[in-house]
Amino acid sequence: MSQIQSSTLEVTQMANGQAMTVPVYTIKGQGSGPSVYIQANIHGAEVQGNAVIYQLLEQLKQLDCYGDITLVPLANPIGTNQKSGEFTLGRFDPITGENWNRGYHFNPQLPAQFAAANPDLTMNEIVEQYRALIISDLEQQKINNPYGVKTGHALCAKLQRMAFEADIVLDLHTGPISSRHLYCPEYTKDSALFFDIPHVLFIPQDFDGALDEACFCPWWQLQQAYQQQGREIEVAVAAFTLELGSQEWLCLDEAKRDSNSVLSYLSHRGVVKHGLFKPQVMTRYGCYLKDYRAFYAPKSAMVEYLAPLGGLISQGEPLVRMLRIDRYGHDDAVEVIAAPDDCIAILHFASASVNQGTELYKLFTNYFTLSA
Amino acid sequence: MSQIQSSTLEVTQMANGQAMTVPVYTIKGQGSGPSVYIQANIHGAEVQGNAVIYQLLEQLKQLDCYGDITLVPLANPIGTNQKSGEFTLGRFDPITGENWNRGYHFNPQLPAQFAAANPDLTMNEIVEQYRALIISDLEQQKINNPYGVKTGHALCAKLQRMAFEADIVLDLHTGPISSRHLYCPEYTKDSALFFDIPHVLFIPQDFDGALDEACFCPWWQLQQAYQQQGREIEVAVAAFTLELGSQEWLCLDEAKRDSNSVLSYLSHRGVVKHGLFKPQVMTRYGCYLKDYRAFYAPKSAMVEYLAPLGGLISQGEPLVRMLRIDRYGHDDAVEVIAAPDDCIAILHFASASVNQGTELYKLFTNYFTLSA
Amino acid sequence: MSQIQSSTLEVTQMANGQAMTVPVYTIKGQGSGPSVYIQANIHGAEVQGNAVIYQLLEQLKQLDCYGDITLVPLANPIGTNQKSGEFTLGRFDPITGENWNRGYHFNPQLPAQFAAANPDLTMNEIVEQYRALIISDLEQQKINNPYGVKTGHALCAKLQRMAFEADIVLDLHTGPISSRHLYCPEYTKDSALFFDIPHVLFIPQDFDGALDEACFCPWWQLQQAYQQQGREIEVAVAAFTLELGSQEWLCLDEAKRDSNSVLSYLSHRGVVKHGLFKPQVMTRYGCYLKDYRAFYAPKSAMVEYLAPLGGLISQGEPLVRMLRIDRYGHDDAVEVIAAPDDCIAILHFASASVNQGTELYKLFTNYFTLSA
Amino acid sequence: MSQIQSSTLEVTQMANGQAMTVPVYTIKGQGSGPSVYIQANIHGAEVQGNAVIYQLLEQLKQLDCYGDITLVPLANPIGTNQKSGEFTLGRFDPITGENWNRGYHFNPQLPAQFAAANPDLTMNEIVEQYRALIISDLEQQKINNPYGVKTGHALCAKLQRMAFEADIVLDLHTGPISSRHLYCPEYTKDSALFFDIPHVLFIPQDFDGALDEACFCPWWQLQQAYQQQGREIEVAVAAFTLELGSQEWLCLDEAKRDSNSVLSYLSHRGVVKHGLFKPQVMTRYGCYLKDYRAFYAPKSAMVEYLAPLGGLISQGEPLVRMLRIDRYGHDDAVEVIAAPDDCIAILHFASASVNQGTELYKLFTNYFTLSA
Repeated sequence: MSQIQSSTLEVTQMANGQAMTVPVYTIKGQGSGPSVYIQANIHGAEVQGNAVIYQLLEQLKQLDCYGDITLVPLANPIGTNQKSGEFTLGRFDPITGENWNRGYHFNPQLPAQFAAANPDLTMNEIVEQYRALIISDLEQQKINNPYGVKTGHALCAKLQRMAFEADIVLDLHTGPISSRHLYCPEYTKDSALFFDIPHVLFIPQDFDGALDEACFCPWWQLQQAYQQQGREIEVAVAAFTLELGSQEWLCLDEAKRDSNSVLSYLSHRGVVKHGLFKPQVMTRYGCYLKDYRAFYAPKSAMVEYLAPLGGLISQGEPLVRMLRIDRYGHDDAVEVIAAPDDCIAILHFASASVNQGTELYKLFTNYFTLSA
Repeated sequence: MSQIQSSTLEVTQMANGQAMTVPVYTIKGQGSGPSVYIQANIHGAEVQGNAVIYQLLEQLKQLDCYGDITLVPLANPIGTNQKSGEFTLGRFDPITGENWNRGYHFNPQLPAQFAAANPDLTMNEIVEQYRALIISDLEQQKINNPYGVKTGHALCAKLQRMAFEADIVLDLHTGPISSRHLYCPEYTKDSALFFDIPHVLFIPQDFDGALDEACFCPWWQLQQAYQQQGREIEVAVAAFTLELGSQEWLCLDEAKRDSNSVLSYLSHRGVVKHGLFKPQVMTRYGCYLKDYRAFYAPKSAMVEYLAPLGGLISQGEPLVRMLRIDRYGHDDAVEVIAAPDDCIAILHFASASVNQGTELYKLFTNYFTLSA
Repeated sequence: MSQIQSSTLEVTQMANGQAMTVPVYTIKGQGSGPSVYIQANIHGAEVQGNAVIYQLLEQLKQLDCYGDITLVPLANPIGTNQKSGEFTLGRFDPITGENWNRGYHFNPQLPAQFAAANPDLTMNEIVEQYRALIISDLEQQKINNPYGVKTGHALCAKLQRMAFEADIVLDLHTGPISSRHLYCPEYTKDSALFFDIPHVLFIPQDFDGALDEACFCPWWQLQQAYQQQGREIEVAVAAFTLELGSQEWLCLDEAKRDSNSVLSYLSHRGVVKHGLFKPQVMTRYGCYLKDYRAFYAPKSAMVEYLAPLGGLISQGEPLVRMLRIDRYGHDDAVEVIAAPDDCIAILHFASASVNQGTELYKLFTNYFTLSA
Repeated sequence: MSQIQSSTLEVTQMANGQAMTVPVYTIKGQGSGPSVYIQANIHGAEVQGNAVIYQLLEQLKQLDCYGDITLVPLANPIGTNQKSGEFTLGRFDPITGENWNRGYHFNPQLPAQFAAANPDLTMNEIVEQYRALIISDLEQQKINNPYGVKTGHALCAKLQRMAFEADIVLDLHTGPISSRHLYCPEYTKDSALFFDIPHVLFIPQDFDGALDEACFCPWWQLQQAYQQQGREIEVAVAAFTLELGSQEWLCLDEAKRDSNSVLSYLSHRGVVKHGLFKPQVMTRYGCYLKDYRAFYAPKSAMVEYLAPLGGLISQGEPLVRMLRIDRYGHDDAVEVIAAPDDCIAILHFASASVNQGTELYKLFTNYFTLSA
């Protein structure tokens, strides 16, 4: 049994003067397990993660937790509240166009500096002192700044400040119309076997602004910096992005399934009792990020999405049917567009009405099967 | 076998100087049947009507047509091309906020004026002369105007100009997430039995700006004006809005089903051979427009839509489950909201993320069964 | 010297669960003058009214107030916070497209019903009982409703609930790029002489959804209902919309000028000491609403606005220069468009990039000079 | 006297099936001068560059041109036509949020590869063969691609394909509310003296996706690659971004002034007769890009912009006055925010209504005077 504390954190102020806040739920662990940070809904339309956090809270309060757990649903009040027609325009800042999940902070100079300055610290000292360093750098750059901080950066910095305290970071997302998939850093490939997610993207150490990268890059690059000095250390932090189906959609039953999936990983890591939750048996497919290809509309059209999400598509099999009713009577009024390579269709665009160059599908190419 | 002619009609110019056009397909009938105007996609996100027009063209070219038929897909290029995130913001003019389907023209003074001035014309003369009158009025008010014409009104006027030539007008729409339903004017209730659409809204003679109203109001009110003078005439024009499922979605197979439904009505009316297409046997439910109720979110939340579309819901049965994860630990974190009356759920909002006061469902209340 | 009380009123909840509020400032008058309600910023981009309320508060706290005064700046938190690029998309509900200033409530049946039922009440009794009636009707229709209330209607109803208590209602707006102008109901034409606003629109008793109409229509139509019964009463409520220049713009000095203008009217009405503030001497021009004409772009173009705001334009004088750089080398690459009639240019569109049919200018035609 | 040829180039197709095009004007030079590419309006709201191109065409047709000149106004039909309320939402792709001026192509591997493979070519051979290489790479990556090309990248690639043919590239922009300023690469600092633009940003060789960078980076980095091999060559291409005042605004007279400014640079470069146009005498201020600082709103408010554009502001002098009318009666209801350093205010946000973290001003810090 665990006690859940709740609080709210101010993340910005809107033009009318009101502060916008996010709810923060915390569980104080017994101290013997790693600490965890779980966030949902940084993209405004991706609501299902909130339901997963609800189910996690319902389950965690029944369990003993060995590590501290922080859960932050509704992480982006601006994105959540930005409506445009019947949908939530929550993927990017409506003022600047910047993707809300690309504003996290990473200082690429710190890993080598720290490793050079501290060659002989114990692993525990490394974790403690390096964590303090990256938190202090974040605060200096993105929280206290005489020129102010951009809205999106301030939001990200306040969330990242909490995430930096954790050994495990899970960022809950969804795709547009999407099957479940997982972003897993390459250095901890086996972690993918403990989530009930059949499609896994392995991502390199490059920083592109997302929360998972912002949390593991400092530690992965620290490991590499020590390696260059001839010392092997572990990567102390693991961070993942979980894509839990489609946006603009909520289902508490499906959320329970994903809550079990998260608990399976946390159980594996010793945040809750080992073996209490186990991953489902399923075929898991992997793909390197460089092979995760977008397929763009070769022309504009009204589109029928034919390739089933999660299905194995052979080269030449249909992806979409394109209706150009303005071309009725010509050969190109109805055309089927085929997959350029063998692939797995992971997600597709949310609308049937597309411009030329719209991203129709995201595809695993050169995919492979994962095994324990 | 019928010949299909194609042309394009300029409806507006965009800021960059380019003209925007709509495709116009016409079939010249043999002259013995009523004329037809069918339009789709005046709301940018409602794409499925284009597929229905595709299937109609495929079927009509195989058939003898007794009346002229004009088919206009992609009727609103501005709405179709106005994207906002992954969706089409095509319901209203992005500059003015005006619903694209509320800009049609109706001059309420003409019916009584015409009836008073022409008490003794034959029905054929009435149709011919009154049609010429309303077309001339439309052109004077909304096409030739020294102060110019508002973008939305100009678009509507150019479409309406074509629709005014027809005896039968079908405007193809969809809802957000929606079951099929039909808007049918009260004076021609039995028409509803010839479409394969299980839910029928009966609408009064008030003009609220939509195409169907703009086409039948002049004729219905003309009938009433003659009636007040003691003469009974028919309402010469029938106009319907067909809602063909959900927006942002295309399916050519489902479109074939709706093409058959339209042909059933056209066959009944003698546009194509009587009896060639017959309506499906189904229970059809009716509702008066005044009893078509919106149900608004009593609070903001993340929402799970529970009431099945097309289902008969009893008072007190659940409509939605509302998750307020920010209220976790309180009684109102998860609440089920019940139907205030017996009803049929016709459509629901497209997103699971809703403000207080968002229209969650549209409901038939005081509904009844239609019979032949 | 007057005491200013402040409070906040919840007007809606956003999707993330947070309540949105408006600030409410009240001054308790000495009881001998009419009561006043002043509101600003119902359209999100029209910010200058907030500065006028600031200056009014600064001045009123130095004065004796004879009537109660309620001031509500930032009246529409949704509109204020809805950004789109570098501007505020605050004119209409981003979900429905409905103009925020068209959602107020008016029940057209109440005036005749009340007058018929209460032919012999004293004027004081009429004011008291009729006010109670329209407030009760508003609450029943738009605040307590088992089907919920649409976001925009709920917002309007909560503001209108306060405005209904007042004898004088001032709704502070701005145009896009605009000169100062005043909407004044025809029954109280002379009021226009007490504001420092050179251009005055006289509006009829039709209800079109705006706050000023929602406040004076019930009383104007009550007067007419009594008149039909043969009794002459005063119109007990006066309501005005003040357009205070351009949107997206703030200037505290100009606001002081408009604060003086409002105080001039309030002084005339006895809310503050008679004669304490006096209207400026200026030529005031009037125009009936039916003669307030929009001029729409006859073609798309990049536009240079030539007609000076507030200037008297003769028929044939230039309104705009239209650059169609895509037509370079043709006669229509640069065209000057002339005024179709003698007019005063009151406001113009905010952007130089216009579609065909964009409202370029709003013009007083058939204007006249006001005199005391 | 020069002959102006006009054509149109298809850059994308919109969902309704229509191709969108840009106008292309070309002048065939006499062959003795460098070639020029001038583009305007890649950001939809930045219309003034079109007027400058108009004035340039008017002047160039009177002159002898020694080099070929290509002028492309209205370069982004999607951005130009994307309206949102009364403004043009043309800064970023409304679907993806990506800045239209960050989608140009640069392959960082080509400079070193080419220099290594071709150490001994003459300068003329280098220019010819390297130009062919980067064009071929662009076409392969961004025009012909079996997975299609993203809308924004396809647009940029088609423009860049033309720009790559030129020795001089001028990209005409505006700021939101802005004074004139110039982006000038550091390697050709003296060029800044030939434009009539008082504020100059010197930018390094990093590629961040903009057209100017995409055009000069390949050549600058080529020069550096040869330098590393011990050979000094010139940077063969010069590219500049000109910011010509404020967005959403058109003035043909001001455009003439900027046309003269462009002709002054072209005259200096020998595109038209040397000495025919001369730069105006003015104080020019420079600033390195790293010292071009954004100042973000420290809190949300209604804002009055106090710092004059182009003015020299001392540390502690006012930038903005912030009105928080919801805080009336508290010390922070009206606050003046001061410049954190000595600076020149170059541009400010377009709206007076700002969220916390909105970019209020862009400021030259550590600025200096340019001299010949």
